Amino acid sequence: MQEHDLGIVSPRIERFEEPLHFTGGGSLPTYELVYETYGELNSSASNALLICHALSGHHHAAGYHSETDRKPGWWNACIGPGKPIDTRRFFVVSLNNLGGCHGSTGPASENPQTGEVFGPEFPQPQVDDWVDAQARLADRLGIHCWAAVVGGSLGGMQAMAWSLRYPERLRHCVVIAAAMKLSAQNIAFNEIARRAIMSDPGYAGGYYLREGKQPTQGLALARMVGHITYLSDDAMASRFGRELQPGSEDDTADGAPQFQIESYLRYQGQQFSSVFDANSYVLMTRALDLFDLAAAYGGDAVAAFAKASCDYLVLSFSTDWRFSPARSREIVDALLAAERPVSYAEIKADEGHDAFLLPIPRYLAVLDAYLKRVEV
Amino acid sequence: MQEHDLGIVSPRIERFEEPLHFTGGGSLPTYELVYETYGELNSSASNALLICHALSGHHHAAGYHSETDRKPGWWNACIGPGKPIDTRRFFVVSLNNLGGCHGSTGPASENPQTGEVFGPEFPQPQVDDWVDAQARLADRLGIHCWAAVVGGSLGGMQAMAWSLRYPERLRHCVVIAAAMKLSAQNIAFNEIARRAIMSDPGYAGGYYLREGKQPTQGLALARMVGHITYLSDDAMASRFGRELQPGSEDDTADGAPQFQIESYLRYQGQQFSSVFDANSYVLMTRALDLFDLAAAYGGDAVAAFAKASCDYLVLSFSTDWRFSPARSREIVDALLAAERPVSYAEIKADEGHDAFLLPIPRYLAVLDAYLKRVEV
Repeated sequence: MQEHDLGIVSPRIERFEEPLHFTGGGSLPTYELVYETYGELNSSASNALLICHALSGHHHAAGYHSETDRKPGWWNACIGPGKPIDTRRFFVVSLNNLGGCHGSTGPASENPQTGEVFGPEFPQPQVDDWVDAQARLADRLGIHCWAAVVGGSLGGMQAMAWSLRYPERLRHCVVIAAAMKLSAQNIAFNEIARRAIMSDPGYAGGYYLREGKQPTQGLALARMVGHITYLSDDAMASRFGRELQPGSEDDTADGAPQFQIESYLRYQGQQFSSVFDANSYVLMTRALDLFDLAAAYGGDAVAAFAKASCDYLVLSFSTDWRFSPARSREIVDALLAAERPVSYAEIKADEGHDAFLLPIPRYLAVLDAYLKRVEV
Repeated sequence: MQEHDLGIVSPRIERFEEPLHFTGGGSLPTYELVYETYGELNSSASNALLICHALSGHHHAAGYHSETDRKPGWWNACIGPGKPIDTRRFFVVSLNNLGGCHGSTGPASENPQTGEVFGPEFPQPQVDDWVDAQARLADRLGIHCWAAVVGGSLGGMQAMAWSLRYPERLRHCVVIAAAMKLSAQNIAFNEIARRAIMSDPGYAGGYYLREGKQPTQGLALARMVGHITYLSDDAMASRFGRELQPGSEDDTADGAPQFQIESYLRYQGQQFSSVFDANSYVLMTRALDLFDLAAAYGGDAVAAFAKASCDYLVLSFSTDWRFSPARSREIVDALLAAERPVSYAEIKADEGHDAFLLPIPRYLAVLDAYLKRVEV
């Protein structure tokens, strides 16, 4: 642990008994949300900041779960005392979204109506549904209006959706490495990930838990596809180049020479498949595909943002080709046309989409400067 | 068939009894090459032009195999009477490479030493091995020196390898949408394709033919990965956008909404898996990964090209992100530094890497102008 780290943090669970109806059909009669908080809520509840997680994220955004924890939360670079999301000023709330696999109700949870695991019968959540669930958590915590809602990638989509769905409930919206909707190419990569999972015999039509199976290979492959698209070509080149892996743990046993990038991807894929739920991955990628900020406004993003009332910070990274700076500029253009206050920075970074998770000095400085201006 | 098409063409087979030793180890004691020729070899055999195919290509580059054939050869846009590769001037030779699955000896052929199908025991060919086999075919056809060796993508790698391996046996080298070596990102995509194939239980360690299986899903997935990377983001956007597919042939039966790009990719993947051999796909992608033009010259491409003696035409396409214009410019820079005559054009095209197969007017015009200057 470092000086500016939060130390030990603990997750909490809130249980909700009122049903949540999903945008695309289906509902949850009851559900639980797991979340963490960092810092103290002030007496007027005006200093609350919501973190929305991305595809494979979860509630554990900062700090450590135990003294022996080797790795802190996924956004520890940004959250903590004296960090851009400064826990001396903000009361930070970070939850695991519905449909996830880290403690909130998801496909691996028991369906109270059948007594069986949901599996593939878990209803498909969309970004608006997550925002609704987050709003109920805010109610429960006594937070009427967030000082800021902050998210990267799929989390940035949630932040934007907040500003349209509950415009009076946030004052600042921080949208990092996101887009108003996915491109066909993005959808195509997600479809390949889903195909990889679903065509693994271990998937068993999504009933792998009931049948005592696991689509390990398919989920690993899905993660490998994702991983390539999160890294820039340059980042891969400088990290791996074309170096061959000597005496590697090649599990194909096909005797073929192996490049370091191959064994790295395999390792990452295998690791991921041991900790993530395949049905959750399918649901999360579908939610990404289905997000279309302006769809309910006839495709007019300016009309959509016209109903917002918060200030915006939009950030992008120069080598991000999954959610390129051009996609962020579309957001900025729509916000300007809708006469919303918006700050924008494109951060020069070699790391591609992954950059939003990394401690890149200019990125942290821009975020820090913006959030310092947020009154609490 | 159109006015400038070749009409009916027929493949021929040459059998070779002298062993071919592969660069990376292994050898074929005997082998067959299937090929087609278009046009007439002149009396001095000075008008021969070799076509080298890419990853999933084959010998049938132009014309039709029967009156009822619906589709011509894969490069019919470029090859024929009056086309850039003008069969009134050139004697065009197009073969299927060793390790392929369209008639030349490959993993689905019988291993004469065991009487069984080669399967995964087929030795790994590299680009230089293909060039050696092509040189033997040239000998057989009485061609000492090609007027030009022409190839796109993996075919462009073969064309470059010809100019280093047999510098006195070609006068012109046409390198389209290629690179001197793959980037880590390219290797990563190929690795995902191989993983998809090998983790399909139908692959059976490569012995699927002996066991009466097929890694259909894995090969389809591999092709889907490839397909995304051959198309540009813009091409996908203009072709598919985010349109939903009404009443689609969704074979997941998971009831999820489906975008047109998803069903398109699935269809392409399924089609491909019904006509291509999985072990061939593994071998071809490995050959791509292993190609490194300058490796034998201490990584110095200028030193490599210094031993060449032909003229070069290098072409790239503006939206090709798998073999980007930057990779082509590296080739051009090395050729200039090696004082080789080189022409270069970057063709503006929306179609990504796929552009090299398409009848893009400026592309055909540049190729036509260059080849008209080739003396025969």
